[in-house]
Amino acid sequence: MPVTTIEWRHHKVRLIDQTRLPAELIHLDIDEVDDLGEAIKHLRVRGAPALGIAAAFGVLLSVQRLQEEDGKEALFLEMDRAIRYLRGTRPTAVNLGWALDRMQAVAFKLRETSVTEIKEALFAEAFDIHERDRVVSRAMGRHGAELVPDQANVITHCSTGALATADYGTGVGVLFAAHSQGKRLHVFVDETRPLLQGARLNMWELQNEGIPCTLICDSAAAFVMQRHHIDFCIVGADRIARNGDTANKIGTYGLAVHAQRHGIPFYVAAPVSTIDFSKSSGAEIPIEERAGEEVTQGFGRRTAPEGCRVYNPAFDVTPHALITAIITEAGVIRPPYFENISKLESR
Amino acid sequence: MPVTTIEWRHHKVRLIDQTRLPAELIHLDIDEVDDLGEAIKHLRVRGAPALGIAAAFGVLLSVQRLQEEDGKEALFLEMDRAIRYLRGTRPTAVNLGWALDRMQAVAFKLRETSVTEIKEALFAEAFDIHERDRVVSRAMGRHGAELVPDQANVITHCSTGALATADYGTGVGVLFAAHSQGKRLHVFVDETRPLLQGARLNMWELQNEGIPCTLICDSAAAFVMQRHHIDFCIVGADRIARNGDTANKIGTYGLAVHAQRHGIPFYVAAPVSTIDFSKSSGAEIPIEERAGEEVTQGFGRRTAPEGCRVYNPAFDVTPHALITAIITEAGVIRPPYFENISKLESR
Repeated sequence: MPVTTIEWRHHKVRLIDQTRLPAELIHLDIDEVDDLGEAIKHLRVRGAPALGIAAAFGVLLSVQRLQEEDGKEALFLEMDRAIRYLRGTRPTAVNLGWALDRMQAVAFKLRETSVTEIKEALFAEAFDIHERDRVVSRAMGRHGAELVPDQANVITHCSTGALATADYGTGVGVLFAAHSQGKRLHVFVDETRPLLQGARLNMWELQNEGIPCTLICDSAAAFVMQRHHIDFCIVGADRIARNGDTANKIGTYGLAVHAQRHGIPFYVAAPVSTIDFSKSSGAEIPIEERAGEEVTQGFGRRTAPEGCRVYNPAFDVTPHALITAIITEAGVIRPPYFENISKLESR
Repeated sequence: MPVTTIEWRHHKVRLIDQTRLPAELIHLDIDEVDDLGEAIKHLRVRGAPALGIAAAFGVLLSVQRLQEEDGKEALFLEMDRAIRYLRGTRPTAVNLGWALDRMQAVAFKLRETSVTEIKEALFAEAFDIHERDRVVSRAMGRHGAELVPDQANVITHCSTGALATADYGTGVGVLFAAHSQGKRLHVFVDETRPLLQGARLNMWELQNEGIPCTLICDSAAAFVMQRHHIDFCIVGADRIARNGDTANKIGTYGLAVHAQRHGIPFYVAAPVSTIDFSKSSGAEIPIEERAGEEVTQGFGRRTAPEGCRVYNPAFDVTPHALITAIITEAGVIRPPYFENISKLESR
């Protein structure tokens, strides 16, 4: 069973503090929107689908204490403030904005009703986003597992298992699904600098599930492909443009270039909610730049000279031509992506 | 002026402890072969040319206390023991073995003479190796700088400046030479996991020389190439086969693949002593695997689950087809490499 990464419990958002893994498994119980925003900014919760759920729960935090007598104006004020704030916490992952849009639309549709009715609808919507992620996660796993041969040797980048979602996960979720079908796997796990989501989170999850795995430095992936037989690479996504260009953790683009050189299939696994139909190509996706300290003193001691300049983009964009297939809950999407992704818009 | 990475001083090998940089500039004075071997294994001194000098000085440590009355047998016994031990400390860097071969040949040639004569010749040879590295370093810089345009934007991997040699360095040495000619440069520095030679050593040296530089994660290099104009990549080498295949710090091969994709020239700078004429291709070069702890707890605290499996190759091999030119003290070598490298053998 996958871990419970995020849930709504006793009027609070309960989540695993992923910055403490793998040393400690600690849960946070958050009841203020600002604290949730801080947790998102500091990557205590991360992964595009999990961010969508966190954002929806954040809206609940903003409105749950309001009563009928506070009035609808207060409700919309609180909610809008929360949505504006949460939307700005991470710019690249589209699921965050997608979930907030859904919450906002629900409230707007019921704007002529009562505080109680709006609140009830917001709770229902947030729980639906959460529940839907479970269903979607399993469906992605099912579709993706069909691409996984027995005795597969795999490379993955960043953390895309249960810690990125409400259930199996995206990229690693596909591996969990294949494993549960009895397929034998071995996974090379990119450590994923600077924040080591691969080393800290993927390795922990894969070990917990009993899937053989080996940690490598990101820069060793090309050498591994050169010297070992690799069946495929699989990653998640933070935002996918209509043409299939995919924003994901920094290093994904480089890995895809290496996969192409070695003739290795490169799969992206992501829910349809990760597709941004308003972006026709990856050039339009905003790329979050994070603090240089993540690179220079991420793990207890400073490892670069004081005052040095650092460029720390958190994501890159993999051109669609390098992507063999995109695994979604609606099935496996293959090129031509613009055409095939557009078909999903009406879903 | 470059720092003095290694020198023979008061009957000892004096070297900068590079594991303490950039936090502290600490010198070690070593007078036992075993301590020198430990320093090499722990990368207190590293970089192919510097390792050659260290090895030669190590032979001096093994014989310097012997007198005529100890006899030649004792001298050869001590020297052979030291050479066997030092040769095994790092398997990939060829300069180490190259310097030891030179020392051994000198002693062998004089085996019919006296302890004093052999010792004198060994000292002369070690100082020659040291001095030659200075000259070679400057010559590489001179030849390489001709390839550097003004206002060049560069990516480099691992530490190949003065800390890797007895003078300017190899890859970064070329940049120092270009800078000293007044050319304006900006260098993107790969941090170089797992031991962060780029972040710790390159950044420190480039800052000291006043060359603008920006630290990036290794996995960001492809994205940097995609979004910025990069004029060339430059790296050093630990061993070059006769066909131009180049063993260098893990991540070099991946960087070369990215450079090719983006049409960016990829230069290797190395002295002729780094060429292993006995190896016809990179497939024959032994690749050192180092302890997993370098990856899992390099930053002061453990960043991966206990007991996890790690694959930590210290080097990879870049196929010659990805290398635009090899910069040596004898000039800039271009394809066809097998033919043009073979011409250097008689030097």
